[in-house]
This record gives sequence, structure tokens and C-alpha cells, in this order.
Amino acid sequence: MKAWRLTAAHEPLTLAEVPEPVAGPGEVVIDVKAASLCHSDVGFLDGTLTGILGFTPITLGHEIAGVVSAVGEGVTGVTVGERVGVPTAFGGPGQATDGGFAPKVKVGAEWVLPLPDGISFQQAAPATDAGMTAYHALKLGGVTAGTKLGIIGAGGLGSLAIQFAVGLGAEVYVAEINESVWDATRAHGAKAVAKDITEFADLGLEVIVDYAGFGTTTAGAIDAIAPKGTVVQVGLGRERADISSQNVVFKEVTYVGSSAGTHEDCAAVMQLIADGKASSTLSEIGFDEIGEGVERLARGEVVGRLVAVLP
Amino acid sequence: MKAWRLTAAHEPLTLAEVPEPVAGPGEVVIDVKAASLCHSDVGFLDGTLTGILGFTPITLGHEIAGVVSAVGEGVTGVTVGERVGVPTAFGGPGQATDGGFAPKVKVGAEWVLPLPDGISFQQAAPATDAGMTAYHALKLGGVTAGTKLGIIGAGGLGSLAIQFAVGLGAEVYVAEINESVWDATRAHGAKAVAKDITEFADLGLEVIVDYAGFGTTTAGAIDAIAPKGTVVQVGLGRERADISSQNVVFKEVTYVGSSAGTHEDCAAVMQLIADGKASSTLSEIGFDEIGEGVERLARGEVVGRLVAVLP
Repeated sequence: MKAWRLTAAHEPLTLAEVPEPVAGPGEVVIDVKAASLCHSDVGFLDGTLTGILGFTPITLGHEIAGVVSAVGEGVTGVTVGERVGVPTAFGGPGQATDGGFAPKVKVGAEWVLPLPDGISFQQAAPATDAGMTAYHALKLGGVTAGTKLGIIGAGGLGSLAIQFAVGLGAEVYVAEINESVWDATRAHGAKAVAKDITEFADLGLEVIVDYAGFGTTTAGAIDAIAPKGTVVQVGLGRERADISSQNVVFKEVTYVGSSAGTHEDCAAVMQLIADGKASSTLSEIGFDEIGEGVERLARGEVVGRLVAVLP
Repeated sequence: MKAWRLTAAHEPLTLAEVPEPVAGPGEVVIDVKAASLCHSDVGFLDGTLTGILGFTPITLGHEIAGVVSAVGEGVTGVTVGERVGVPTAFGGPGQATDGGFAPKVKVGAEWVLPLPDGISFQQAAPATDAGMTAYHALKLGGVTAGTKLGIIGAGGLGSLAIQFAVGLGAEVYVAEINESVWDATRAHGAKAVAKDITEFADLGLEVIVDYAGFGTTTAGAIDAIAPKGTVVQVGLGRERADISSQNVVFKEVTYVGSSAGTHEDCAAVMQLIADGKASSTLSEIGFDEIGEGVERLARGEVVGRLVAVLP
């Protein structure tokens, strides 16, 4: 079969012939129906995150949904024909093992999550990563009904987070530099949108989740948060942030990092999407367009999540 | 009576004649027996913290212990002749109202904490601030028996924190740039002492408390902490810190600010000192030497806590 492979940092993804995977003991093979493109894929290509890959050349693609086509010896609880997604993890496919930018992907049975009725493969794919990560950060921040919440970044993760948080009954204020998504952000239920989170500094925001992570956004969150509030870091647009430790102490701020999430988070997100309470903005592409798609993503040309749809 | 007053930022403390305080309704007057000098006093003089003072001219002195000499109308639970301390708070004496660099100080009865038998006024004075703040940060970090704990800074707060943490059964590793206090630090029960907390990065420190706060110390703590660990910020040697937000996310670090503490914390600290389980290193001075003492503190010439002893 043909798969999109990364050979080395600073090389483009290339479509190469690889053997079809066979399910060994404890493993399942999934026929990929949708695989979405993530900013981490850009990081694997540009050197930023290449070091965390299990090996090279490797087939990328870690936001995967499809149908189980084979189960190995000793696998229980997963059946052939089942619709499944693969919650993203550092040890999972597309990072530690060959991923889903291919017609078939092999994963340990423990990685597999059944899809609820009513969610499409296209929506399920980004839910395994962007959705789960966005949701986990809200949970870690203790967001609940009535929480005054700031969200920084209304992109792939942030736009889902806004919908999840509004669904939880939070009062959501959004900072997003790209004004072209402001209308969509308001349509998702945000009370107000501004360019910078510090514009909401007088509102007493109890929790701020930074899905952008450009250093300045972190610093702004620390400055804008209410006393005893919590700032959750998810995005990593820059490696470092210059923050006011004086504000951290005087306001007794909690600043906490959130990475990925749990299968439980992913299942909750899948259900919210299946119930029509949230959805990702998608741009569908064909399998052949994945290589070009990652480059468009790297150039910042993509609005919404690029998802490759397979037959 | 004569009191040490601050007139304005960048002016020295001056000894001025002021009226003796009278206990109004709900208030008590304390005959000050010991008042210790704090780095915040330097901040009040040099402009850094002058803005948080309630008014000027003001009598400084917020680490106070003494004997109740008068109680106002409606005061219950505090009696004349009682030995007391005044847990430090932004709204308290020496910050919001006239403080204890004077023979007498007036405070709301709710500020007063009885001293246990066995603690001297000299030890009680720094316990109201340095001790309480040091202890609160350990509690906030969840330090308990067996915790692998890093402490940055073995000065007034840190040296007490080491003793409290060792008493709690924690395994304590200390970063302190001043090698002259390394022997004392080891004598307090630290497992090891180094110049920089990152030298302990391989030990899996679960909690690090930064009592120094020089920006670089915060950054080092974020780099040295174990995955899912907690960094507590107390010290504010610099206003800002340039930290790795990438490490915060990848390691799911919690970074939290700790300011002052509760009466409960202060009472616990007083008891530990009364029981001989911890003590501050003190340099006693006379009341007349307070002005010069603050200047010595500003110049970094002081080892241990300067405490003014009154007759």
C-alpha cells in the first residue's frame, strides 16, 4: 500500500510503497476512513518535534478514525467491522509507530476507542487529538457552569473548547488575533471577542486556557487572571514565556500545563459531537493531497481542520 | 513615644515623635518586645513596594511580638498581659496601619495570635511573617513525609522551610548560592546543597519551592521539576521570569504563587519553634539601631534575621 512517510527533518512528506500491516498478538488493524492534519505534523517536519518520533522513516498521521478490519490473537473487546478512533498519545501511531496517513494502520488494541452513533469519521479524526486535548484542559482548569473563562486562540482546539465550555454553562471570553473567525466565535456562544486577553482583565476571569502559547499570550493570561485564578497552558507557539512572577505570587495564581488527555476525555468529546453539541470546522482533502496539505498548514494557509478522507 | 517612620520612597527611616496609640472599640494595644526586619521593609524604602503602604508617613514594622497592654471596647478572647504575635498581612500593621518599629502598636483584635509557652519574643517576631510564609508554601505544595523536595534559597524563609520540611519527613535538597550557609543548611537536615537547583534535575523532585525568585531560579525550578511536579513561587527577587512553557506543558507542571499564610499556619510555626523543632538564626539589635539595620539589610550585609529587642 502507499503511505505518507517522513524520512528526516526538513524533508517533505513522500508517498512510498510499504507492506500492509498484519495484526500481531494484542493488535488490531484499522482501515483508515479519515485522518486529519495537525500542527504537530508540521513540527515533525520542521525539526521542532522530530526528536520525539519513534523512528524514521515513519508514516505520520495521529488523528485517525476508521473501521477495524483485523484483530490479532488475544484481543478482546474490539471486533472486526467496528467504527473506532485512536486517542492520540506520545506512544501511539503517527508518533511512536507508523500512523494513519495510509489506507491501513496497526495499533495495540488498548489504543482503540469505539465511536458513538452519529459521529462521522471526518469529525471523529480531529476529536482524537484536538478535541480531547481542548476538553482535558478545561477539565484540568476546573471549568464548570458559571465559570468566567478566558480562551486564547480560536483555532482547531480553541474553537472546540469554546463550544465545550459554553455547553458546560461557562461564560466565555475569547482572545483571537485573526478577526476573520470572530463571527464564528460569537456564533459558538462566546460573550465577547478581542485581540488580546488583557482586554478582559477587569472581568475577574477565574480560568484562562491558552491554546496559542506565543509567550506574550501566556504573559497576558497571567496579567489578566483574577486573584486565585488558574491559567492552563496548552499551546506551544513559542518554547518560552516571560511572565510576571510578581503577579503569580501577589494574586496566588496557579499556572498549569495540560498535555493531551485520557480515553475518558476523548469518549466525552465524541459523544458531545455525536449529540450535535460541538463540531470541528473541516476542510476535506483527498488522500493524495496530504503532503501538500501539511505544507499549506505550515504556511498558515488553512482555516479549520484539514481532514483526508479515504474510500 | 518615638517610632521609626517612612516618609517617602528613597528616604531613610527616621525616628520621630508620635502619640501613643489608644485602643478603640475592637482594638488592642501591644507593648512591642521584639520586631524583626524584613526584606519587604527594604522594598518599602526603595520604591519597589512603597505603593502598597496604606499611607505615608507611616511607622514600619510588620513582624511583631509583645505583650497586650490595653484592650478596647467589645474585645473578647484577648487579655491584658497576654503574650502575642501579629501574623503579617497586607491589611495589617506596618503596611496598612502604623507598625511595630515603636514601643507600642495598635491592631484590630482579630490580628492577634497568642504565643505558646516556650517561644521567645525574638523567635516569635520573624515567625509571624518569614515563618508563616515559609510554612504556607510547603503546605500549598503538598509537602508531606517522603516528598522529594527542592528548596531554593536558604535565607530567612528558606532556612526555616528546610527545618519544617525535614520535620515533616521530606527529603530536602537545597540550592543556595551563598556557600557560607551550606554547613548550617546541612545541619538543618538537608540531604545535599548545590548552587543551582538544576544540579538536582535527575533526582525526580516532586515539589520545588523558590524562596529566592530571581527569574533564573524560577526557570531552573521549571526545568528541574519531575513530570507532574509542583513549583511554588514565594520569593520575588526579580519581578519577572523567563520560563520554558514547553516544559510546563510536556511535564504537566503546576506552577503556583504563594503569598503570606493563615493564622493556622502561623500558630503551627509558633508551636514548632516552641517545641525546639525549628528556629530562626537571629542577630539582635537595639531599638535605636532599626534605621541602620534596614540599610544593612538593603546592602545585603545581614546574615540571619535582624530583630530589634525592646525593654
